[in-house]
Amino acid sequence: MSMTRRNFLMRVGQAGGYSAAFATMQSLGLMPMKATLAEPIAAAAGSGKGVRLVIAGAGIGGLVAAYEAKKLGYDVTLLEARHRPGGRNFSARKGVDVEFVGGEKQTCTWDAPNYQNMGPGRLPSVHGTMLGYCRELNVPLEVEINTSRSTFLQNDNANGGKPVVQRKAVNDTRGHVSELLAKSISNGALDQELTKEDRERMLTFLKVYGPLDKNSKYIGSDRAGYKTPAGAGPVVGVIDDPMDMHTLLDENFWTGVLYEETWDWQATMMQPVGGMDRIPYAFDKALGKTIVYNAPVTEIKKTTNGVDISYKQGSGTKTVHADYFICAMPLTILKSIPNDLSPAYKTAVDGSTYAGAYKIAWQSRRFWEQDYNIYGGLSFMNPGPTTIVWYPSANLMAPNGILVTGYEEENNWGFSKLSTQEKFEKARTQLERIHPGHGKELTQPMFCGWRRVKWNEGSWIRGYGGGPSGYDTITQPDGPIYFAGDHTSHIVGWQEGAALSARRAVNMISERVRSARLTGAHTAVTA
Amino acid sequence: MSMTRRNFLMRVGQAGGYSAAFATMQSLGLMPMKATLAEPIAAAAGSGKGVRLVIAGAGIGGLVAAYEAKKLGYDVTLLEARHRPGGRNFSARKGVDVEFVGGEKQTCTWDAPNYQNMGPGRLPSVHGTMLGYCRELNVPLEVEINTSRSTFLQNDNANGGKPVVQRKAVNDTRGHVSELLAKSISNGALDQELTKEDRERMLTFLKVYGPLDKNSKYIGSDRAGYKTPAGAGPVVGVIDDPMDMHTLLDENFWTGVLYEETWDWQATMMQPVGGMDRIPYAFDKALGKTIVYNAPVTEIKKTTNGVDISYKQGSGTKTVHADYFICAMPLTILKSIPNDLSPAYKTAVDGSTYAGAYKIAWQSRRFWEQDYNIYGGLSFMNPGPTTIVWYPSANLMAPNGILVTGYEEENNWGFSKLSTQEKFEKARTQLERIHPGHGKELTQPMFCGWRRVKWNEGSWIRGYGGGPSGYDTITQPDGPIYFAGDHTSHIVGWQEGAALSARRAVNMISERVRSARLTGAHTAVTA
Repeated sequence: MSMTRRNFLMRVGQAGGYSAAFATMQSLGLMPMKATLAEPIAAAAGSGKGVRLVIAGAGIGGLVAAYEAKKLGYDVTLLEARHRPGGRNFSARKGVDVEFVGGEKQTCTWDAPNYQNMGPGRLPSVHGTMLGYCRELNVPLEVEINTSRSTFLQNDNANGGKPVVQRKAVNDTRGHVSELLAKSISNGALDQELTKEDRERMLTFLKVYGPLDKNSKYIGSDRAGYKTPAGAGPVVGVIDDPMDMHTLLDENFWTGVLYEETWDWQATMMQPVGGMDRIPYAFDKALGKTIVYNAPVTEIKKTTNGVDISYKQGSGTKTVHADYFICAMPLTILKSIPNDLSPAYKTAVDGSTYAGAYKIAWQSRRFWEQDYNIYGGLSFMNPGPTTIVWYPSANLMAPNGILVTGYEEENNWGFSKLSTQEKFEKARTQLERIHPGHGKELTQPMFCGWRRVKWNEGSWIRGYGGGPSGYDTITQPDGPIYFAGDHTSHIVGWQEGAALSARRAVNMISERVRSARLTGAHTAVTA
Repeated sequence: MSMTRRNFLMRVGQAGGYSAAFATMQSLGLMPMKATLAEPIAAAAGSGKGVRLVIAGAGIGGLVAAYEAKKLGYDVTLLEARHRPGGRNFSARKGVDVEFVGGEKQTCTWDAPNYQNMGPGRLPSVHGTMLGYCRELNVPLEVEINTSRSTFLQNDNANGGKPVVQRKAVNDTRGHVSELLAKSISNGALDQELTKEDRERMLTFLKVYGPLDKNSKYIGSDRAGYKTPAGAGPVVGVIDDPMDMHTLLDENFWTGVLYEETWDWQATMMQPVGGMDRIPYAFDKALGKTIVYNAPVTEIKKTTNGVDISYKQGSGTKTVHADYFICAMPLTILKSIPNDLSPAYKTAVDGSTYAGAYKIAWQSRRFWEQDYNIYGGLSFMNPGPTTIVWYPSANLMAPNGILVTGYEEENNWGFSKLSTQEKFEKARTQLERIHPGHGKELTQPMFCGWRRVKWNEGSWIRGYGGGPSGYDTITQPDGPIYFAGDHTSHIVGWQEGAALSARRAVNMISERVRSARLTGAHTAVTA
């Protein structure tokens, strides 16, 4: 079973898991530098004419595949089990349901224009493919605030459980590190390692980096905050005393430090105005009748010249023949659909496992803005079960808003064993550790646990049957059947991975169509 | 002559000035932690009834003073030399003029909705007074992006003049620092300084902080960027090699590193949607006829029971009597107005000096977004004369936008000696160092050099006549004359300083009115 990068990122919120995660993370994959399309569509417009393509799953992977294939002239049908596009790209808002396998259903009652992105919530500026689609489809974007220096770090087992504002933790830590390195250099400890010039350069630099005083001591800094903030007339600001290094270095405590420097969590990040689902709805508008909703696939069967896809429609079943099929459904769903995939593919799919990330979101007065100066960003708590508080970037300064008080793996800390109601009460209690007295302001909770969400049954892939070779298998076609979705990319858990994998699938099919045409195939159906 | 904190911040863009700045910066003043009003208005509603208050200067200081005094029942007149409110809070947009002393005038021709805040451009989340007014006056806010990891650092005298993306500079630097400190600890260099437990804690921490590999080496990190970004199917990401430490430590190079951690430049920062001048226009709406526009003050003269203020109206002059007067004009303007200030005040005012910050802004295709993934934030160049490129946070993803290619002191590098046209050409050439080939995309430049802007003649105060005692003098009343504006606060160059100083002036007057009423004064005019 291979692990995905996304699973490591989820461990940011877990005591002790951070260090191990980062060490391995570097060998895992991420994203392009430029806001240009990293997987250019290689085929010519019209080159797909007369070729019948069926796609299953109208998440970002399926939507992008359908959109690009239509541009090339393919005859495309996109089957979607739900009544809406987007898959995990889902925004809860007034009147919207979260439906679990087994029938449990929650209906959102928040005031408009409040919403919460229950799946992807961030568009990093390095995810050029998704940003490109937002530009192309006219989806207005605004900043998603991933970092705020006014948010908190808290751990019951460090600093007496008291939360520390991130500006203090981040800046006092760097101050102590700088002082110790300056001391080492001054003591001659690095004379063998560094030239005299570099030692001098480093000492000069550390004065600013710490910042350190003229004796190379870290005595606090405006960066870490004020004991008495400056004001008008005689009110001079007094810098706060530094926190002691021993506490800052407690591993129980610094969980969460530097999450913001991870490649795809770095500023600038964005979000569509009004909800992440503005993207799938923009694709829906562009695709028109190409998408067939309420059409769960019931069978996938190869034929001599393609593949037959059966799906429900109303009370009956329909079967459609395709030259090529792109399966953009989660493997959790695919594995329960009768199919004649080749053995290696069956192994990869049937043995796959998925993470079960969830979000808990509430409507509340914006106490975090009004009483704490927190505008967006994340706070971290430990221990769990809920460890992350995520403050909204949308509708800043409005009277109320949506607060996420849990975003993690449902199986951690036995959280999955609690009833939905018990989960809410637990999350409310946990919040008191950072925002005492405010738990009671939280109302109208919504729990979106992807492990049990109907038509998903998982948040993102954790591993493939057959291990790494399972990944290699499903990123190649099984005859006329291609796979798309973030699980067929090295950017698991991100829309960018889904979009790139879809473009890759369309490219592979186009190449095959081109070759087939050269040998006389597809000519019968070509206009 | 005392120096203001703001002047140090301006030196961020100057080679070598950074280190010195930070060392001193810590003794200078800044701002409150909470989004509550740090200078609460102490008087009761109606307590100002029958008391005549004249205020001169409808910048943020004058506007806040008038707004708060009216709430208390004072009979308020706010005189403003221009036809608009805001003072330095000024947004250039289509049809708006920048007018210099001496008559030079530029008229903005940018496409709507483009604009540029030529004065204050940021609302830090720790500036609770200004945010409070935005909430109270319903001024919609959005994020001002101060930090983007995709922006650049560039210095002709380091790294062969080649720009380095900030994610690389910031994260490779921390990596090298961490490796060296880990080495020092492992070599026993800090055995005297740290307990065994703390040495172990620090080594564990540095593994994540660097991050360092299992041999405690820094070998690069996703935080610093990719050589090959990950993609779909077989495309695995390959981390970029670290930059060498020698280059990163070049003092010519790291100018600009950590600017984002300065207390009032930390995330989250905000801006009003549509321009910073939405704030003064909201005050204008709330104040109605209280503001008299096109009314430059011509004389200030104390009387036996208050003060007479003369001002131009049309072709004539009017004189109005006030019980109290708040001078919220810049001292540059006050010093040229006939007045009978007491000698210590005259010394403070007449000897004051102002900085001459400017901005140069252009309309352009958003090549920074489309070709560089840069959405907001700042790049830094050296040497000058223009050293800062400031990318817009407004209207992300629009086809064109406004780019600032210079924001510094006009006297540096002899820039003030160039004609406006020469300044534009210089700024355009400078930009090529970071964005080669894009200088030619810049059109319709506007130069707002506050040193010469009519009714300002300076960007913010640099020092007071009489030195620090000059500050102490003008933060106390001269008989019935009070002073307001950021120059009467320890938050120079920020609207927050102006707002707090105005609230303080209103409080001081209210206290005096209260005492006077107890001794029988003001009774004649009290309703």
